[in-house]
Amino acid sequence: MIKEEKSVCKTYGEMDIGSFTTELGARIRNVKIAYERIGPKDAPVIFVCHALTGNQYAVGDEEQPGWWSGLIGKGKHIDTTKWQVITMNVLGGCNGSTGPLSEDGDGNKYGVKFPFISVRDIVNSHYSALKRLGIRNVHAIIGGSLGGMQVLEWGILYPNFAKLLLPLATSPYLSDFGIAYNTIARFAITNDPNWNEGNYEGNPTIGLSIARMIGMISYRSSEQFNARFTREIREGWGNNHQESSYQIESYLKYQGEKFINRFDANSYLYLLKAMDHHDIGRKRNGWRKALATIKANIVAISYKGDIIYPSNVLNEVGKICQHNSQTAKHYEIDTIFGHDGFLVEFEKWGHLIEEELNGIH
Amino acid sequence: MIKEEKSVCKTYGEMDIGSFTTELGARIRNVKIAYERIGPKDAPVIFVCHALTGNQYAVGDEEQPGWWSGLIGKGKHIDTTKWQVITMNVLGGCNGSTGPLSEDGDGNKYGVKFPFISVRDIVNSHYSALKRLGIRNVHAIIGGSLGGMQVLEWGILYPNFAKLLLPLATSPYLSDFGIAYNTIARFAITNDPNWNEGNYEGNPTIGLSIARMIGMISYRSSEQFNARFTREIREGWGNNHQESSYQIESYLKYQGEKFINRFDANSYLYLLKAMDHHDIGRKRNGWRKALATIKANIVAISYKGDIIYPSNVLNEVGKICQHNSQTAKHYEIDTIFGHDGFLVEFEKWGHLIEEELNGIH
Repeated sequence: MIKEEKSVCKTYGEMDIGSFTTELGARIRNVKIAYERIGPKDAPVIFVCHALTGNQYAVGDEEQPGWWSGLIGKGKHIDTTKWQVITMNVLGGCNGSTGPLSEDGDGNKYGVKFPFISVRDIVNSHYSALKRLGIRNVHAIIGGSLGGMQVLEWGILYPNFAKLLLPLATSPYLSDFGIAYNTIARFAITNDPNWNEGNYEGNPTIGLSIARMIGMISYRSSEQFNARFTREIREGWGNNHQESSYQIESYLKYQGEKFINRFDANSYLYLLKAMDHHDIGRKRNGWRKALATIKANIVAISYKGDIIYPSNVLNEVGKICQHNSQTAKHYEIDTIFGHDGFLVEFEKWGHLIEEELNGIH
Repeated sequence: MIKEEKSVCKTYGEMDIGSFTTELGARIRNVKIAYERIGPKDAPVIFVCHALTGNQYAVGDEEQPGWWSGLIGKGKHIDTTKWQVITMNVLGGCNGSTGPLSEDGDGNKYGVKFPFISVRDIVNSHYSALKRLGIRNVHAIIGGSLGGMQVLEWGILYPNFAKLLLPLATSPYLSDFGIAYNTIARFAITNDPNWNEGNYEGNPTIGLSIARMIGMISYRSSEQFNARFTREIREGWGNNHQESSYQIESYLKYQGEKFINRFDANSYLYLLKAMDHHDIGRKRNGWRKALATIKANIVAISYKGDIIYPSNVLNEVGKICQHNSQTAKHYEIDTIFGHDGFLVEFEKWGHLIEEELNGIH
């Protein structure tokens, strides 16, 4: 299925990559990878990797602007008149690529029979899809959070594929603190009685809401929460334990509710596991040695106050690469948004991306 | 019920304070406040306020050492040969003081029919209990977290009662970021099907486990988690979504499990609400003006990396008081333990308490 929107030179499609074998050796048949492709087809490619709850709609359209529509588009920092921008939904996702919501060969939903996947599997499946799109190399690969994990794996798995890697708000391995948040989210989903060992109708809404709320408190800094909500009162205090006394409570619960309508709980579980298992050094003698095998230039960006992906780790990545005589830089963006910094305030850091893509620095 | 342990001059008791009227105007009959009292009965009193999941057993005994047994005892920083140390279980608690587990007048458990209480209610009930113990003033009041909230309220509600206030790891108001964590914990408990609108048998174990785990990730810094667990593998990865792949997962789930056996879910809910509602400036024209009414000396201690009670707020408390010509100091303790700093590493900051109690500084 390919739908062309000629006026903006945009394509949404699904690429059938056939059978795919995961890192753990499971074989998934008839794998589809859904993508967004925007910009001139003869222009150099910028490949975009999305985060945990993201999707292939990085740019989207006017009615539903994509999650990076502030960064990518005509005349924007990633200019779609100059670059061809391709974003793919991750393997295991729930926005068109094969995942737990897909049918297995026997006409049933996979659910928790879907095999466990790693960030490396996501990258390998996207490589296969890009090849079938006729793309043999790209100018740059960019992504934040889980997307940034993919960017680093791209540099190791396919060292000659991209000239430039732009990992944002990420880390060469998920920290224990990151696994801790994921553990609680996973516990909440798998202990929701409606999860039913993965065989639910609809979604296990309580568990998935809790999972989303736990994500939300890790994505932004305490400063941002406090500056935004200032203990503003909502329903008042002392009537019952379900009341939303303060605005922050109402906001968080609303975020949970919104999420259950747009994301599949099993898909969330599989992606959490892929994140937990993320370590570019796995079976490669540690992350520092793995890093040394990257041939592309690296421009890593971290965001001040990111509690899960703290700046000092990406800073170390930059230093190790420089020590190895690799071409690498690290920028820390001053923000109160913490981890979510890679999704906002493009005026602060979009020019860095633009200049690096254009080779100005 | 009074049990004397003469050798260590320690008493555990329950003080009946009669009827108690809450800040919201509810009347609770036959209120009991459970306490630990240790040290010479003619010595000046140090009154200890406990945190959310704490209790009156600050010192405890050899078999079950209390949560501050490293700080308080014979020859310790708070020396029980020199000071008389009294700790009381909070109103609404579940360790002997009247709370949701107690019987109402009709022989039923209160459950969620227990009235909503505030930090001010906790302090007022303890004042009443201390008075009945014959204590008309104390040398100092000390506590961390929810305990520190009580310390500040003590200074405002009873300005002539203590000479010295030692609020640790706390804030004059709970931040929105703090309310956010509490919101998720509350959502998890009240949406556990076994909660049953507060009429459970046993405990709503899933919700209460989640609540505890959410607490745990806020109590310590990411540095401490990462330094302790170092992605150590537990069960391995990729078998099912309930496995504990990494040691940190196993640790967190174990903390959740332990907690459900020692704490009542409704009590937890009431104390979360008291924390959310904590603002020393409520009905007092803001926290800065409320602060100015304190007559006691203030020594505030914060712990580096505390994400819920960041140092800068207690630092501001110190500065405002100094500006008001009140006697106040603020210390920040360098630690990787974050908020939990007030429960560990007494060698780092216990001497400050000791010296301030002795008037050395």
